[in-house]
Amino acid sequence: MSPSPSAELGSGARRGVALLGSTGSIGRQAFEVLTADPAFHLVALAAGRNADLLARQAALARPAAVALAEGALPELPPGTTVERGPSALEALATRDDVDLVGVGTGGVVSLGPVLAALGAGKVVATANKETLVAGGHLVMPLARARAAERAAIDPGDPLASPLGWLRPIDSEHSAIWQCLVGEDLATVERLILTASGGPFLEATTDELAAVTPERALRHPTWRMGAKITIDSATLANKGLEVIEAHWLYDVGYDAIDVVIHPQSIVHSAVRFVDGSLKAQLGTPDMRLPIQYALTHPDRRPSPAAAPDLVAAGRLEFRAPDEERSPALRIARHAGRLGPRASAALIAADDVAVARFLDGSLDFLGIPRLLEEAVARFGTAGGSDPDLAALVALDREVRAAFASGTPGVAGASRAS
Amino acid sequence: MSPSPSAELGSGARRGVALLGSTGSIGRQAFEVLTADPAFHLVALAAGRNADLLARQAALARPAAVALAEGALPELPPGTTVERGPSALEALATRDDVDLVGVGTGGVVSLGPVLAALGAGKVVATANKETLVAGGHLVMPLARARAAERAAIDPGDPLASPLGWLRPIDSEHSAIWQCLVGEDLATVERLILTASGGPFLEATTDELAAVTPERALRHPTWRMGAKITIDSATLANKGLEVIEAHWLYDVGYDAIDVVIHPQSIVHSAVRFVDGSLKAQLGTPDMRLPIQYALTHPDRRPSPAAAPDLVAAGRLEFRAPDEERSPALRIARHAGRLGPRASAALIAADDVAVARFLDGSLDFLGIPRLLEEAVARFGTAGGSDPDLAALVALDREVRAAFASGTPGVAGASRAS
Repeated sequence: MSPSPSAELGSGARRGVALLGSTGSIGRQAFEVLTADPAFHLVALAAGRNADLLARQAALARPAAVALAEGALPELPPGTTVERGPSALEALATRDDVDLVGVGTGGVVSLGPVLAALGAGKVVATANKETLVAGGHLVMPLARARAAERAAIDPGDPLASPLGWLRPIDSEHSAIWQCLVGEDLATVERLILTASGGPFLEATTDELAAVTPERALRHPTWRMGAKITIDSATLANKGLEVIEAHWLYDVGYDAIDVVIHPQSIVHSAVRFVDGSLKAQLGTPDMRLPIQYALTHPDRRPSPAAAPDLVAAGRLEFRAPDEERSPALRIARHAGRLGPRASAALIAADDVAVARFLDGSLDFLGIPRLLEEAVARFGTAGGSDPDLAALVALDREVRAAFASGTPGVAGASRAS
Repeated sequence: MSPSPSAELGSGARRGVALLGSTGSIGRQAFEVLTADPAFHLVALAAGRNADLLARQAALARPAAVALAEGALPELPPGTTVERGPSALEALATRDDVDLVGVGTGGVVSLGPVLAALGAGKVVATANKETLVAGGHLVMPLARARAAERAAIDPGDPLASPLGWLRPIDSEHSAIWQCLVGEDLATVERLILTASGGPFLEATTDELAAVTPERALRHPTWRMGAKITIDSATLANKGLEVIEAHWLYDVGYDAIDVVIHPQSIVHSAVRFVDGSLKAQLGTPDMRLPIQYALTHPDRRPSPAAAPDLVAAGRLEFRAPDEERSPALRIARHAGRLGPRASAALIAADDVAVARFLDGSLDFLGIPRLLEEAVARFGTAGGSDPDLAALVALDREVRAAFASGTPGVAGASRAS
């Protein structure tokens, strides 16, 4: 039996939630989960530029405060205040009435509110990849310190683990987390991240060179945004997930495998020292990992359908072709180099995918650009970058590889 | 992080183990695991009739006491005493220096030592199917009472769960147990027991009718004894495992699925209320579930190889054909009828398989005999049977269906 998280996260009352990025793909699904569960109270909402949807969400949830990054504020319910300016997200995430911060915003700027929230003793559930890829060295020590405080009081407290504080929303990392519940991290031998392989699993290198944005956006199993669909085709997303897994689960790069699993039913697996392997399986529905991150250690009924092994019939696995998918090798290399290289990689991938989609970079140019970014920015000396240094590095990498920049390998289509 | 079980099971010293059935298939592998792990001290060994192997085991482990059910005692190390008579197993299992009892003995008689051990506050790790199929209604209340005592002191204690006290060694139930670690049993929606399907997965009913013992003993994935190989071909073993799962995990018969999985890599799975499914995978090596039952909640390095998803390539699943495998339906029916019917079923299956192997019953006669046994003995009224009543019922069922008994459906080959 698990203790009730409400007893952990407040005074037994409803848990106050700040949802950052509430109008994005993850944010909308998190909003759905949070408003369907009476254990939660949406205290704060932050959106990028979708004022209409923010207005509808505010009318439903009647939050104490909202923020909108760009554009004119919509009409808000009476009593809802507005946070403005560059520290609006931090202000929402650290409110006294917030217990849990859901992060659906993109980019390295999301690191600020995450660090502020952990510093203020809030639980963070995040779908933001920069949190760990660029900021793992900043975020995890905070989560570990919070966990150690709880462990000193009650080792059985779900918040006595760093994963109680920094909760992954990615389906792969959620799968690993679910497999690790009740297990000792010291008995983990390998992590096995599954990858659908994307739409070009069977393509030759010549075919890959000719891939168009339209074709790349047809993902076989998950309906996702353009960025993540291209990342799934290059396996860059899986490379970033390897780096995230390294930080989240404190496992070395040599002990993190990527396995192609076209059916996307096994979301990931863990191999233990005794030869036992545990896997988590699900349908491709992000509401499940979103809900798990919010309700852990509890499981609640969910609209997500359970997978049916008999209906699936077979689950297939194969090794990734790292020659065809160099992004995986580049990401492992960046992870081993350290936080600067990982931060350069994730910024460069953003640029590379945008340029592929706008036609200024061909498909095989994406990994070339990633490799060059890691080589140019990842081997600089000095200590690990702090938040300000990460934001500056992100800007520098984006400027270096922007469309039309001269002297960049892969910078022009069919170069 | 899990608390050390040695802190739970004694004064931090080595855990004393009584191994019952030490010379059988499970017993030999348990002996191997126990003698390789310095956390254990083999205090007592009991064998059936293999005096030579018992002597070799005693020479290696230097136990305080041994028992041999049949035949002349071998030479024993100085200081090793001998328990004799019908209560020898109980005497060994309840010794003051025993913390944990490993049960590799067969038959309903093993229930006596299991009940005595739980009554004396010993942890029981059992591969004996009668323990739960016939005696679930006696064993589980004891395990629950022991768990409740611990939970009152420390809810985080691994022994605060009934599964801490009654530990399954079957690979399927071990898989479910491993998937449930750290989870709340109340959030379990379905259990999914996998079955290899045995050697006749593709056979027609006509082909099944003509199956010989020689053919039936060729099991595709597991090397096992004759009894369990035939049980695997009829799916009677899976039917018995459904009844065991019902008792172990307190899940209704409607919520326990059987899925044919010819590769025998997914050992079983659990579906939770949120649509998440967790599975445990392993190679077909009983040393892993044996070790897990002994070392839980710890995992230790094991000689068992880990499964390789890429080498396996594909995992297949299909629904069992309950018409071709009536034993599954009969077992669910027996489970629903209650302990008398389940006890009659497991005794009848022993007789049926022995008669198939000696040529006095054809393959399709096995389920016919099971069905008749459940109908004749399972619907008698009265309260749930106690240990003495179970032993008497077992004897009655065996006598009723013994080879040559007149008037028994399926009692003669090709009847």
